Amino acid sequence: MPQPIDFQTDPSTYRHWRIAYDGPVATVFMDVDEDGGLFEGYQLKLNSYDLGVDIELADITQRMRFEHPEVKVVVMTSAKDRVFCAGANIRMLGGASHAHKVNFCKFTNETRNAFEAAEDDSGQKWIAAVKGACAGGGYELALACNYILLTDDSSSSVALPEVPLLAVLPGTGGLTRVTDKRKVRRDRADVFCSIEEGVRGKRAQDWRLVDEVVANSKFDATVAERAREFAAASAKPDVEAGISLTPLNRKIDADALHYDLVEVEIDRAGHKATITLAGPGAAAPANMDEVMALGDQFYLLKLARELDDAILHLRFNEREEGLLVFRSQGDPALVAAHEELLRANADHWLANEILQYWKRVLKRIDMTSRSLVALVEHGSCFAGVLAEILFAVDRSYMMEDEFEGDNRPRATITLGASNFGTYPMANGLSRLDTRFFGEPEAVDAAKARIGAPLEAAEADELGLVTYILDDIDWEDEIRIFMEERASFSPDAMTGMEANLRFAGPETMETRIFGRLTAWQNWIFNRPNATGEDGALQRYGTGIRGNYNRERV
Amino acid sequence: MPQPIDFQTDPSTYRHWRIAYDGPVATVFMDVDEDGGLFEGYQLKLNSYDLGVDIELADITQRMRFEHPEVKVVVMTSAKDRVFCAGANIRMLGGASHAHKVNFCKFTNETRNAFEAAEDDSGQKWIAAVKGACAGGGYELALACNYILLTDDSSSSVALPEVPLLAVLPGTGGLTRVTDKRKVRRDRADVFCSIEEGVRGKRAQDWRLVDEVVANSKFDATVAERAREFAAASAKPDVEAGISLTPLNRKIDADALHYDLVEVEIDRAGHKATITLAGPGAAAPANMDEVMALGDQFYLLKLARELDDAILHLRFNEREEGLLVFRSQGDPALVAAHEELLRANADHWLANEILQYWKRVLKRIDMTSRSLVALVEHGSCFAGVLAEILFAVDRSYMMEDEFEGDNRPRATITLGASNFGTYPMANGLSRLDTRFFGEPEAVDAAKARIGAPLEAAEADELGLVTYILDDIDWEDEIRIFMEERASFSPDAMTGMEANLRFAGPETMETRIFGRLTAWQNWIFNRPNATGEDGALQRYGTGIRGNYNRERV
Repeated sequence: MPQPIDFQTDPSTYRHWRIAYDGPVATVFMDVDEDGGLFEGYQLKLNSYDLGVDIELADITQRMRFEHPEVKVVVMTSAKDRVFCAGANIRMLGGASHAHKVNFCKFTNETRNAFEAAEDDSGQKWIAAVKGACAGGGYELALACNYILLTDDSSSSVALPEVPLLAVLPGTGGLTRVTDKRKVRRDRADVFCSIEEGVRGKRAQDWRLVDEVVANSKFDATVAERAREFAAASAKPDVEAGISLTPLNRKIDADALHYDLVEVEIDRAGHKATITLAGPGAAAPANMDEVMALGDQFYLLKLARELDDAILHLRFNEREEGLLVFRSQGDPALVAAHEELLRANADHWLANEILQYWKRVLKRIDMTSRSLVALVEHGSCFAGVLAEILFAVDRSYMMEDEFEGDNRPRATITLGASNFGTYPMANGLSRLDTRFFGEPEAVDAAKARIGAPLEAAEADELGLVTYILDDIDWEDEIRIFMEERASFSPDAMTGMEANLRFAGPETMETRIFGRLTAWQNWIFNRPNATGEDGALQRYGTGIRGNYNRERV
Repeated sequence: MPQPIDFQTDPSTYRHWRIAYDGPVATVFMDVDEDGGLFEGYQLKLNSYDLGVDIELADITQRMRFEHPEVKVVVMTSAKDRVFCAGANIRMLGGASHAHKVNFCKFTNETRNAFEAAEDDSGQKWIAAVKGACAGGGYELALACNYILLTDDSSSSVALPEVPLLAVLPGTGGLTRVTDKRKVRRDRADVFCSIEEGVRGKRAQDWRLVDEVVANSKFDATVAERAREFAAASAKPDVEAGISLTPLNRKIDADALHYDLVEVEIDRAGHKATITLAGPGAAAPANMDEVMALGDQFYLLKLARELDDAILHLRFNEREEGLLVFRSQGDPALVAAHEELLRANADHWLANEILQYWKRVLKRIDMTSRSLVALVEHGSCFAGVLAEILFAVDRSYMMEDEFEGDNRPRATITLGASNFGTYPMANGLSRLDTRFFGEPEAVDAAKARIGAPLEAAEADELGLVTYILDDIDWEDEIRIFMEERASFSPDAMTGMEANLRFAGPETMETRIFGRLTAWQNWIFNRPNATGEDGALQRYGTGIRGNYNRERV
């Protein structure tokens, strides 16, 4: 087994980023260590990035919310001269497998979405201060910030040179944010995405590519001024101190992952992994002071962190497990009580952050290109936020009536108010609204049963599960389903699930993961990009890609 | 040069369909000739289809609107025993090039969209009467109808077996119409798309897969009754007789296509094709009686038919011409007068049909995966519907001021009221609303200038063109652009254009062409589907596809 990719890090080990804290303003300096690549075979020149750089950025984004709630404005800038960021490292991309490229793009997209949403979710606004070349993935970083300042000198520009230079798309949200967020006129977008050298100065502002162009001499002062202004205007409450995110208690075995609350069992022959979530070990704290005192040991925060890590581990390190099976065991009333404490104190910064974090974790599940199934067994605790997992999966099976020799409490599902809007999907709808897109009255019927432990027959009646099965059928039916699923083409499942999971409206976020990502994945499979004579392989050799001219 | 694929046909040469007319109800019988495949190497068994079958269906859809305006309900059914339609022919797909597969899917999608929209556009409702197996592309045909009756016997079912059987997606709208049109609950959709044998009887109706399940003995009578009911409820005006769509006057040369009003010049070395549209040769008719008398020789109908045919010819038969250049020459006032006659009589069935047809032709241009550019030259006639082409293309260039030795009238653009909503794009917005997605006030500014011939400076000021160029720069700039465009990867351009052209909202239609198609194209490139051991190649051999299990 090769060394698994680890998504856990902390500031003491960062190689590529530095942060300066100044009251309500934090400045994040990108300062990529050329020799700090996650894999062999490339140097991270000109602030180009690979997955390792992005894992640190994801960690910064997360700690900024939990450890530094006093921060209202985050300024992203470069510590290097003459370059903001050159984007994803091309040699890394050229050498990466298709699966790694796709997973890498998904993770980087999720990280950008997280800091972009920080303003709406908790009043923490990220802004980009761009000095020097800002190209490709570099400009995509800036695009995900909610304000872009560009210095006006001869070498500073913004660019999306992927198409002319590399024969791939600006796939980390670039094309979508240009049209949907920046709302650039489409013919100008066509021009902008076709010119390697990009656009600078006044034209960048006129074309809506940046918000403000500032003379070089006044740049630092203007950035500081804007940061202060945005901080003063922020709706974020004043908080003195955050909580610490301490290292997870995790053990990786050959065929298992162990955390305090999450167990992952890997069945390689069966091409599946089973994720079991434990309920709380104790009653819910009485108030938010007690939650603050527990810090990252508070049940719902700890569970979210462990589950998030487990999903990322499976995505990157266990790629042949096409089916993820979600189970839970514990007391559903305790789960509901923990969640209700947060919801009752949603104006407390930490309660808000934990709920927002669950929103992100659940979206991470939605976006995971594995078949997802939940088993609602006796003794399980699918209540509130954990019940939400039942509506994230592709299908679910629930135990009905007594099972011989099984003394655990009868399987139930407990809906909470949280299932009706606290954790919207990327499409902007709750998972139940998406599920009942064709029968909105079913949402109301479910809402009327909030708080009641629903046994199989009623859960089925309400449309909350796919199948209910009794002792006689349970084992066989589930075995047959799992064997069948494992026999299908993984690619066809990926495409099918990407289409079936997101009924209804599209948003910028779903368009990034849907339209843009799907086209990019297609291009990643095309010889014009990734073949021997393709542009990605030839990059840096001085020879242009040799293209098959056929349009399809 | 191989024999080009011809999209012109007429009922006298149909091999695969029959139609019975009975006043306001027409019944379209699918009766595919097994030996009538467009290419060698496969038999069209069990009402499976290839492009040739679909070209006839597109022709039926079109003639139903123009030649049979008396028809208010079209019943689609099968003339074969025990099978409605088995979908796209698998051996045909297995043997087709990637480009043919993609173009085939696009064309079949456009045809389904056309008969699906006939109800909204002109009150002509298509319904599906399903007896026998209705699988894959067969069910996708039914899904595009606006009412589905299924007979209740042991052999009749609806199914989307593509994923389990072929390792590809139900890509002709199937997945999208299941979630967005039929609004099937997502876990049921997951089950439905995973079972080869499909769903029949009451469950098909309970799961929203069909509208009505009818006992076999009452099926024909019920279909007839529904057809009569829908016809009686139709908002379509009573019309006695339509007009004839006579054969196009077309000549195909080695490097050119000639029609009466459209000229296509192919520059193989430059990888581009130039499409020149001629303005009207005479004043507009005085009223719709005169238009009726002209029939398909009426300028705007003739031009639409010729342009539509030219686009399809280029898509299928000229695949290395990555750039389409749109030009026009003629009197813009005459174009505007022709269009205004139609708009002033939009409640006349033929005026409505011609305007709706232009909506489809313009959408066909939007969906064409070639780089699109318009040249607004002196002597051109980009007014109203022809100006709309300027907002469909990726970028445009306009001549400014006098050109030496050029006596043609100065280049102008004339907006019509039609540019503000008559021809919505697939995203539901007008092309100007899409263009000015970030500056809605620019739409109002343009609207204030309806009817005025706008010269270059003003067109530029209003944001209607990308570049205006004078005599000194024109030739060089355009040559450089065309050379540069020809040097880019065709695949990257396809992906870029598919993302930049459709800012803003997504609809079922854009999701079919965006999300669903992009994933399908990705899968078409994956060995699990199209490799030597992939499911498409192995279909019918009795051996399952041998899949790489890695999820990406």
